Amino acid sequence: MKASRIVLASRPMGIPSFENFRFEEIELPALNEDEVLIQPVYISVDPYMRGRMNDVKSYTPPYQLNEPIVGSIVGKVIESKSDNLKPGDLVNANLPWATKIIHKSHGLFKIDPNSAPPSYYLGLLGMPGLTAYFGLLDIGRPKEGETVLISGAAGAVGIVAGQIAKLKGCHVVGLAGTDDKVKLLKEQLGFDTAINYKASKNLRKDIKAACPNDVDVYFDNVGGEISDAVFANLNFKARVVVCGQISLYNETRMQLGPRFLPIILTRSAMVKGYIVRDYTDRYHDGILQLTNWYREGKLTYKETFVKGFDRLPEAFLGLFAGQNQGKMLVQVE
Amino acid sequence: MKASRIVLASRPMGIPSFENFRFEEIELPALNEDEVLIQPVYISVDPYMRGRMNDVKSYTPPYQLNEPIVGSIVGKVIESKSDNLKPGDLVNANLPWATKIIHKSHGLFKIDPNSAPPSYYLGLLGMPGLTAYFGLLDIGRPKEGETVLISGAAGAVGIVAGQIAKLKGCHVVGLAGTDDKVKLLKEQLGFDTAINYKASKNLRKDIKAACPNDVDVYFDNVGGEISDAVFANLNFKARVVVCGQISLYNETRMQLGPRFLPIILTRSAMVKGYIVRDYTDRYHDGILQLTNWYREGKLTYKETFVKGFDRLPEAFLGLFAGQNQGKMLVQVE
Repeated sequence: MKASRIVLASRPMGIPSFENFRFEEIELPALNEDEVLIQPVYISVDPYMRGRMNDVKSYTPPYQLNEPIVGSIVGKVIESKSDNLKPGDLVNANLPWATKIIHKSHGLFKIDPNSAPPSYYLGLLGMPGLTAYFGLLDIGRPKEGETVLISGAAGAVGIVAGQIAKLKGCHVVGLAGTDDKVKLLKEQLGFDTAINYKASKNLRKDIKAACPNDVDVYFDNVGGEISDAVFANLNFKARVVVCGQISLYNETRMQLGPRFLPIILTRSAMVKGYIVRDYTDRYHDGILQLTNWYREGKLTYKETFVKGFDRLPEAFLGLFAGQNQGKMLVQVE
Repeated sequence: MKASRIVLASRPMGIPSFENFRFEEIELPALNEDEVLIQPVYISVDPYMRGRMNDVKSYTPPYQLNEPIVGSIVGKVIESKSDNLKPGDLVNANLPWATKIIHKSHGLFKIDPNSAPPSYYLGLLGMPGLTAYFGLLDIGRPKEGETVLISGAAGAVGIVAGQIAKLKGCHVVGLAGTDDKVKLLKEQLGFDTAINYKASKNLRKDIKAACPNDVDVYFDNVGGEISDAVFANLNFKARVVVCGQISLYNETRMQLGPRFLPIILTRSAMVKGYIVRDYTDRYHDGILQLTNWYREGKLTYKETFVKGFDRLPEAFLGLFAGQNQGKMLVQVE
């Protein structure tokens, strides 16, 4: 039985390109006891994967050269030698980018297709949603009436963080890179206002105008000059949730910027980085709460689908060009 | 009755100078009911006072032009119309820089001269000691066996933070600006090692050598390039206590440095600024603990005395040239 897979052909210097990926044909063996054959339905592309393409020490080990890219996948069981799963079942797991995958039944999370659209397990009810949930509530700790500012607000994580902040009674402001995204945030996702940072002539002043009481919680997915403009508007006792730094992932050298420690000191601010895995023991509670909010109509979600397994590299590269509204996904079949 | 006082003559641009201070002769009225006449014995000069010389919004309001500089003072009651205080009593309070001061008895903290040297209420048992105590224990939260690095380690706050970290079983490393200070830290104050950052040719590497397991808690009094070298050596889940930024207080424009947010993200680090006043409701516990450690011989303290009221500006300016070991004080009589 043949399958296609995508391996890391070379490590990118700076912005990744198609050349960093290679398609391969492989021959799959027959299933052993307790194994299942999975066909991906949705494959997730996420900004954090850029970091795994580098050969550096980090929480998550780097991808290996000539080995498959691995990421979150929702797939359908098409053959099973396991008592736990049967053909037609939908599962979610971190799996290699391939058109067919053999895996033990252990470690596959079975999805209930009635509770939410299956693709949501890569977004609202998966890593991005949980990242927003724990980062905003555990680190940001927004209080009613406070101002919450979100960069990368129209992305997979940002749209969830902003909606949760609204549920907590905050004044919520989003930063995004196109007028369409600004419109999405204001008209469909309940943000109080949003700013197209690419169109802004003075982002620091525009943020001040949108946040007249200054920023109490800054949920940062972007970093760089956008964060410089936000730090100038931090309130006393502000909390900065460092969730992502997509503007800097492709930089090849240390970037210079304004020194933040004096601001952190004079505002008694708190700045904290995290990865969602720090909250593994609370995933269950997080998914439950997100699912309930979704079912009650209090949270909506937005996805950008790219169709076809062959377009996985294109979808991934599109993240860094801001081509997604909400979650970027590849729909395989 | 005549007295001398020192007022803010002009606001410094950059490094303060003698011209920013003016000595004045004033005539004091007779005491009213419940007032006392105080003669300062020790007057504190502290780096944070530099910030109050600027006309900027901050937690603590700026000094007013042509009004006295105000700071922590230990003084002796020489005349009293209060039932609470009698001549000879020692008191501590924030008071104007003057050779004689009239004040209501309310707001004066009476010192027990048997519990510790009275000058310690400006240092170990005063604002600097409490700043070290709460910053290290409440924000830094060092655990036994962890590595604690302190910048400005030989200063009024640093020597307390380092000794408390040793009491908690940590590997403690100090950064200071002279060989004498390095010697003080290692030989008298129990630091495991210390680095003269001015003599270091590669501070980042020297810190790595002194902290082979990386830095778990960074207690920062200095900022600037020293902090750049420390941030490169932060461990996963490091805590950075932003207590002071003395290297930057005299800068007239925004300083550029390496961007820290990517480091904070990839190390899941936490960076927090604070002022000791955030802990007002726990001062009593802090002073009690510090006093007990001092009486048990577990904490020692170091002071640099400058003699004479007239030399207050000189002592203050000396802080920014690193002329103090431990607490810088003016001894008035």
